[in-house]
Amino acid sequence: MKRGFGSDNHSGFSPEILEALASANIDHALAYGDDEYCLAAQQLFRNLFGPQASVYFVFNGTGANVLSIDAMCRSHHAVVCADTAHIHVDECGAPQRIVGCKLLVVPTPDGKLTPDLVRTQLHGFGFEHHSQPRAISIAQATELGTLYTLDEIRALADLAHQHNMYLHLDGARIANAAVAMGCTFKEMTTDCGVDVVSFGGTKNGMLLGESCVILNPALDVDMRYRRKQMAQLSSKMRFVAAQYQAYIGTGLWQRNAAHANAMAQLLYQQVRDLPGVKVMYPVQVNSLFVQLPHDVWTSLLDDYFFYDWDEANNVVRWMCSFDTTPDDINSFVACLKKRLHL
Amino acid sequence: MKRGFGSDNHSGFSPEILEALASANIDHALAYGDDEYCLAAQQLFRNLFGPQASVYFVFNGTGANVLSIDAMCRSHHAVVCADTAHIHVDECGAPQRIVGCKLLVVPTPDGKLTPDLVRTQLHGFGFEHHSQPRAISIAQATELGTLYTLDEIRALADLAHQHNMYLHLDGARIANAAVAMGCTFKEMTTDCGVDVVSFGGTKNGMLLGESCVILNPALDVDMRYRRKQMAQLSSKMRFVAAQYQAYIGTGLWQRNAAHANAMAQLLYQQVRDLPGVKVMYPVQVNSLFVQLPHDVWTSLLDDYFFYDWDEANNVVRWMCSFDTTPDDINSFVACLKKRLHL
Amino acid sequence: MKRGFGSDNHSGFSPEILEALASANIDHALAYGDDEYCLAAQQLFRNLFGPQASVYFVFNGTGANVLSIDAMCRSHHAVVCADTAHIHVDECGAPQRIVGCKLLVVPTPDGKLTPDLVRTQLHGFGFEHHSQPRAISIAQATELGTLYTLDEIRALADLAHQHNMYLHLDGARIANAAVAMGCTFKEMTTDCGVDVVSFGGTKNGMLLGESCVILNPALDVDMRYRRKQMAQLSSKMRFVAAQYQAYIGTGLWQRNAAHANAMAQLLYQQVRDLPGVKVMYPVQVNSLFVQLPHDVWTSLLDDYFFYDWDEANNVVRWMCSFDTTPDDINSFVACLKKRLHL
Amino acid sequence: MKRGFGSDNHSGFSPEILEALASANIDHALAYGDDEYCLAAQQLFRNLFGPQASVYFVFNGTGANVLSIDAMCRSHHAVVCADTAHIHVDECGAPQRIVGCKLLVVPTPDGKLTPDLVRTQLHGFGFEHHSQPRAISIAQATELGTLYTLDEIRALADLAHQHNMYLHLDGARIANAAVAMGCTFKEMTTDCGVDVVSFGGTKNGMLLGESCVILNPALDVDMRYRRKQMAQLSSKMRFVAAQYQAYIGTGLWQRNAAHANAMAQLLYQQVRDLPGVKVMYPVQVNSLFVQLPHDVWTSLLDDYFFYDWDEANNVVRWMCSFDTTPDDINSFVACLKKRLHL
Repeated sequence: MKRGFGSDNHSGFSPEILEALASANIDHALAYGDDEYCLAAQQLFRNLFGPQASVYFVFNGTGANVLSIDAMCRSHHAVVCADTAHIHVDECGAPQRIVGCKLLVVPTPDGKLTPDLVRTQLHGFGFEHHSQPRAISIAQATELGTLYTLDEIRALADLAHQHNMYLHLDGARIANAAVAMGCTFKEMTTDCGVDVVSFGGTKNGMLLGESCVILNPALDVDMRYRRKQMAQLSSKMRFVAAQYQAYIGTGLWQRNAAHANAMAQLLYQQVRDLPGVKVMYPVQVNSLFVQLPHDVWTSLLDDYFFYDWDEANNVVRWMCSFDTTPDDINSFVACLKKRLHL
Repeated sequence: MKRGFGSDNHSGFSPEILEALASANIDHALAYGDDEYCLAAQQLFRNLFGPQASVYFVFNGTGANVLSIDAMCRSHHAVVCADTAHIHVDECGAPQRIVGCKLLVVPTPDGKLTPDLVRTQLHGFGFEHHSQPRAISIAQATELGTLYTLDEIRALADLAHQHNMYLHLDGARIANAAVAMGCTFKEMTTDCGVDVVSFGGTKNGMLLGESCVILNPALDVDMRYRRKQMAQLSSKMRFVAAQYQAYIGTGLWQRNAAHANAMAQLLYQQVRDLPGVKVMYPVQVNSLFVQLPHDVWTSLLDDYFFYDWDEANNVVRWMCSFDTTPDDINSFVACLKKRLHL
Repeated sequence: MKRGFGSDNHSGFSPEILEALASANIDHALAYGDDEYCLAAQQLFRNLFGPQASVYFVFNGTGANVLSIDAMCRSHHAVVCADTAHIHVDECGAPQRIVGCKLLVVPTPDGKLTPDLVRTQLHGFGFEHHSQPRAISIAQATELGTLYTLDEIRALADLAHQHNMYLHLDGARIANAAVAMGCTFKEMTTDCGVDVVSFGGTKNGMLLGESCVILNPALDVDMRYRRKQMAQLSSKMRFVAAQYQAYIGTGLWQRNAAHANAMAQLLYQQVRDLPGVKVMYPVQVNSLFVQLPHDVWTSLLDDYFFYDWDEANNVVRWMCSFDTTPDDINSFVACLKKRLHL
Repeated sequence: MKRGFGSDNHSGFSPEILEALASANIDHALAYGDDEYCLAAQQLFRNLFGPQASVYFVFNGTGANVLSIDAMCRSHHAVVCADTAHIHVDECGAPQRIVGCKLLVVPTPDGKLTPDLVRTQLHGFGFEHHSQPRAISIAQATELGTLYTLDEIRALADLAHQHNMYLHLDGARIANAAVAMGCTFKEMTTDCGVDVVSFGGTKNGMLLGESCVILNPALDVDMRYRRKQMAQLSSKMRFVAAQYQAYIGTGLWQRNAAHANAMAQLLYQQVRDLPGVKVMYPVQVNSLFVQLPHDVWTSLLDDYFFYDWDEANNVVRWMCSFDTTPDDINSFVACLKKRLHL
């Protein structure tokens, strides 16, 4: 399939990842995470997030999110999240089935929770009939490609902790966020009071592998059993770890994310002033949400693959990736202009 | 870590797998299984198991087993299995948590269920206080390296079907079994009446990826949702599919399994007559279970890594793999003889 | 505790119920529902709802609702409900834990879903990432004391069935609704296309006992096991059945509900025109939701017990019961007037 | 149905219970356990079990057992129990579905676990692939009508605590046990180190109502939410509490249990020496397990209702109850003798 703007997981993986897999493919290694690759990769995570970080490799983003929620919540708890949250919209009810808990879903203008929005859900504490609010879950970057500032994250963490709750950060695109904000992962999470992070790599050039990173040691309880029981424990885990060694150890995460973000900016620059095109949210990472005349976006689908986001309002999503090229952008914009009769 | 006899998932993966990953790493592909690689790989499965086979790629063996059980059972059902079964011993209660069902566990002399053994659990039908027996789960090869004959499988399938139950075959080492028996997968499963297969690849030279193969179309209901909800849906699934294309399409499964089995035979030939060595079960696939003097096997661990199996009885497990070499065997046996003072 | 307006389950039970318990308390009876009392009571339900109705006695409203949802949904399904729904607000996440499914929660002006409101949630069918909408759940009467007309129920049933979904009616106060509407249970449910009913009795003068009534025979699958497994099977079930014999067989449900409704009307007539008092919703069954000056309702709590409903807006709930007397109303209104300085 | 020997829950309830219900049926009371009846009944439990006891009323024995297991275990834990245990045999997999945990089932000669039998399951600690043994569950009296001595209970509690595990006592017939042993509930539980008790009343003359009694305060965490979420919270809970006030406060438990036990002894005395009759276990509480010629017990079913226990071995169960009379025994034995041609 031709490169398009459908999703950052329509891309393959970076050459460094293939090399890492090949390099790790020698001799034997203990299975299930007790090997030297995993130990080394876990140290890289502690370098990134601080020495108290505890990392559990899993298979995919849903696995990371569900394990994260499981670390914070029992079944009578509830997680406050935005109505665009992946855990609400895109995981087929995995938190409900696996953890048994409830999500408290809040509409937002831009994918971002605020303390005021969260407070609408913070009631019923101590009332046995009410699922007890236990965690706030945010995505950084959000599903709408927007970013929380460090102060905004800190405010949500503070709010959570005031109520004996926890803050989870779904970092499926955390690399894009960190690059865009020019801050470290630690500054964006540990230092802001985030308790648990779903750390993504697959959307940013890895083949497969995500992580649940526990930053609050009080939550690091029985995690190995919980991961195993939800079928997220890889046997040949060295090959997830080896990818992380390349991804983190060589700065690949930064290079790939910076490139994807830059491509989104390039696309944004080329389309922002086109008549009929309305960019819906600030372009802060690697995606654009764009309102187009109905016939334009539907016909443009003949040229390139991408997803509609809000069909009723003719909003579509264009996602750039680590492998998007300036030529891809130019060709795409040329098609768009043609469809716009410009 | 030096190559040893710890587990067939201590090995890496075959070179063909790396090539397949590299080859598939071009352009974009739809995520979550809607790509051409997945379609092609699914066709290969239908070639192997028959046209009615429906295959769901998952991440690991626990995922395949739990999804298989989920296809057969609701929470008020029970699965009859051997007390050595992976679903009972090695999955930290995943079936109980994810499906909510019960396992009915039967001691066996050799890891193999028989109709008579299963019948001890076939009561309480229609009695609402009793978890309803709904499936029989066998492993082929078993965890003890033994094999069911085709007739034995057929007898269990018949028994299951007589009671409105299903037969599941945990094929974590199904390739080793098929090679050893000189039969096709279809002969061993579809033709015997098996309803669902967990099809393993990781232990036989793949990097990662297992499958739930539904052979009984009546069970092929809502499987996509069930897989997604249990966090077993890969985003860049083409890279699981591509591995299967190499694994199945080029006969890699056969070459690897034949080699691993041959190495186990070689090892068996060299140790069977050593004084103090007792091989516990027929060596039918790629493992030996061996009783040794206590000080022998504990000191042998200084030379090679392997697992004790039944510590109380001084039984250990030696597992051969697709990458075991005759030299590995020779060196290992030399060490063993030295430890035996031969 | 003095009789007040806190809840219809603050009342005890009707004398007829005590007599029924005493009458059934002779000899032995089979346990778990296989006795003559249960058979007779089930026949009474079929008289009420039609011959295809299948009734499962459970312990409480949460049990009835969860068993009803379980009859309609598997864990990858979703139930559309109002944001005031008991299953969302008052059951501590029981559907999520026991069924594992998701609720899709819709704000409503008056506690009532409409086809348009439901349609906002009817998307993502066939998309494996999305919990599949499978049921609509309404309460009759609603938690706000409002009623669906028969046409409104039918419209929701039709909408559900058009989408291969089901309609559940939470009838914790179904008797109050039927009496208020002057229709039979069958007209309100079976004839409108309702698939499953939670039939309440406890709030209307029974001691204990609720039911899950399956009206759509296609959903009557494995229900006995499901009920048992969720710990809702009573051993001495005859004493639930005997209550139903009195409750249904002697028209107690009607007498009690008519009385409670009448008391609410009496209260409404006496307070509707008081300055400072605003009745928020139509008084259709046995409750009033009333906005009062803050100091009035808080001081009135010294005289009578009742619950605040929306503290931020000074809305409280006054609930009448089968045992509320005109004197209770008169005394209460006298206190209210005093607090209002009238 | 004529009084027989089918089950102690085939009986109705004691007159004192009816009086208690009637007495409590005045005025209003707060729902869900916050009323004076519940507070008083909870105090009675603390009188029985010690001041640290925390009691949660539920609906039935399965509810009490599942809530008890939930207090001790998360889903990755396992409970060691006898293969005759109610939680294994008679609850349709409720622990697996509601808690998600595993049971480790041990065959016993007489329904009683011993430290040696339990130790067969105490392995795999710290190994993430293995459900972690977390609790031992015993029944007192057992399903076979046998009793643990205080020393035997203490030994199991000590074993549990040595392994960071807990001891649960399923007391569906705890009153019969206490009476038989001439000890207090506290001596049998708290003083032996039992952590959680399922306290039964229904089989011993109550109408309905069981309790989960937490003796180990470390386990008294979030119990109100857990009970509510599993649909075991009664709205008009005062009527469960009022029963307990009569049951415990007036010594009804003792009178009823002593009578039932005495009737079993009377029956035992009359049948023990009959030719063809073999009593299988010591008659310690209110049941006899008896081996009879096949045609005898099947024909005797024409006269009286009782259950077969082990059909293959012609063993049946005769259960006495609080309402069994000497005349019942005499008539039954007369029938038996006739069937035995004596």
